[in-house]
Amino acid sequence: MSPNFDFLVTGCAGFIGSNFVDRLVNDGFKVCGIDNLSTGKLEFLKTAMTNKNFYFIQADLFDLENLKKIFPKVDIVVHLAANADVRFGTSHPKKDLEQNTLVTFNILEAMRSSGVKKIIFSSTGSVYGESPVIPTPENGPFPIQTSLYGASKVACEGLISSYCEGFGFQSWIFRFVSILGERYTHGHIFDFYRQLMLHPKQLSILGNGKQRKSYLYVQDCLDGILNALDKTNEKVNIFNLGFDGYVEVNDSIGFILKELNLQPKLNYSGGDKGWIGDNPFIFLDTKKIQALGWKPKIDIKEGIIKTLNYLKKNEWVFEERL
Amino acid sequence: MSPNFDFLVTGCAGFIGSNFVDRLVNDGFKVCGIDNLSTGKLEFLKTAMTNKNFYFIQADLFDLENLKKIFPKVDIVVHLAANADVRFGTSHPKKDLEQNTLVTFNILEAMRSSGVKKIIFSSTGSVYGESPVIPTPENGPFPIQTSLYGASKVACEGLISSYCEGFGFQSWIFRFVSILGERYTHGHIFDFYRQLMLHPKQLSILGNGKQRKSYLYVQDCLDGILNALDKTNEKVNIFNLGFDGYVEVNDSIGFILKELNLQPKLNYSGGDKGWIGDNPFIFLDTKKIQALGWKPKIDIKEGIIKTLNYLKKNEWVFEERL
Repeated sequence: MSPNFDFLVTGCAGFIGSNFVDRLVNDGFKVCGIDNLSTGKLEFLKTAMTNKNFYFIQADLFDLENLKKIFPKVDIVVHLAANADVRFGTSHPKKDLEQNTLVTFNILEAMRSSGVKKIIFSSTGSVYGESPVIPTPENGPFPIQTSLYGASKVACEGLISSYCEGFGFQSWIFRFVSILGERYTHGHIFDFYRQLMLHPKQLSILGNGKQRKSYLYVQDCLDGILNALDKTNEKVNIFNLGFDGYVEVNDSIGFILKELNLQPKLNYSGGDKGWIGDNPFIFLDTKKIQALGWKPKIDIKEGIIKTLNYLKKNEWVFEERL
Repeated sequence: MSPNFDFLVTGCAGFIGSNFVDRLVNDGFKVCGIDNLSTGKLEFLKTAMTNKNFYFIQADLFDLENLKKIFPKVDIVVHLAANADVRFGTSHPKKDLEQNTLVTFNILEAMRSSGVKKIIFSSTGSVYGESPVIPTPENGPFPIQTSLYGASKVACEGLISSYCEGFGFQSWIFRFVSILGERYTHGHIFDFYRQLMLHPKQLSILGNGKQRKSYLYVQDCLDGILNALDKTNEKVNIFNLGFDGYVEVNDSIGFILKELNLQPKLNYSGGDKGWIGDNPFIFLDTKKIQALGWKPKIDIKEGIIKTLNYLKKNEWVFEERL
């Protein structure tokens, strides 16, 4: 098979997907992108669309028969399409199952029917639940899932690994911390900025603000993925992908308020978790991926400020949600 | 809610399910059983059917809307219904996803809509993949799935645990080794006996016969589950359930041939695995469940002989497969 594309990016109109597309196209690769535009934004693909090496397909990955028909000849699939809302799992328990587990199964089946065998997958640090080992390494204790989101991603990882064993696939699975940067469209900075646009004198915070979390800048994330793809060749390659440090939600609020020059009243909902299934301490051990020669260039504070600056210049991203 | 039943057993006409029903009814509990009879056998429920404390529903768990309608008021769900064929995952990859992952999701949703909150679940030692730690404890290293069956069961565990966190459920998850005993209708003893009935002078063996596996007698399995249910009360209770020892496939063949008084020619397919995704060494650490005061009464050899004796007296179980 001579592939028509080097990479197929699912969720290509999303935050990470569109940054990934731009990177790959800039690096000279031929890239096909699929997105159903349910949360992705065509605006994010504006530059890519002008490049002859990028081809966009609007399609829903939930329809396997259609997916098999449109699936291009490609060397590597980058499967980023997902329901990425960790917080609202219990409001619609079927969403994570359908958009993550079942869609990943469809991608694997479409790959199998097209003879495509390599997949990069965006998993999450949430698969560790509340790990007793922090920072948590890739081979930490067998986790107990605490969120429907984490449960769906661990189900995806299991499907991918068993396709590697059963059908000769090869996979690169990355367990992300929260990613920050340009085109960031959900998460705590997005929520805080939206609140402060509407009511600059008050800010509601879920939990007690002492939750400790780690964040990684999107370009560092892409560097980490592409470096690992280049340097590793096991059947199943699993890496934590995060910054080697963490901040409290309160630290994050401090950076945001200083940057925006605001002093709102802070209203905490209380408790050590922001929501049901929230993990009050996420900090991944990233020694394995760092041993490949990668390390992040942008720290958490800089990442938060870059994200804020993007949001300030692109308030249109809030429009449909306001 | 005053439940109409103490237990609801899914897959109640299967090997373990029907033994579970008989045990519970004998212990004086009111039991409802559900089975679609696709692989389960009504014959296995013959005794239970004569007891006023047992009520049988023939239904398919894949239909969530119907399941919600028929779901009884019950204290504890014992979810055993599953595709239990580890071996043929790659022949029909959707089967494990549908019959295990999606059906378990349906059970959880039906429980939620009926206000039922306790679930016993039959998981499997296959969730450990090829663990680097043997005997493998419950909190061994984060596993990499090697079979679609294991992947589907780890997906089920994740769903169940996240329903415990998200919706206040309580679960008892048991990771079984292979179970032996009366009403055993699939697995290596079944396959070997069937071959020897047809051709007593030759026996085909998948792999090199050196695969090491652990087995538990079904009544010991039920004792272990009921004892753990009685003695533990965490939100998520996870136990390995197996015998504290293992045998080679060749040992097992020795016991079978001696019992049947046969000396067939042995034809090995070769290699250290019986099939794609076969784990050549399954041995679970059962200290956690043994610490609750349970231990198996029947060893692996006795379990194999009891199973053979059952098959000898019940050759009808082979009929539909011959």
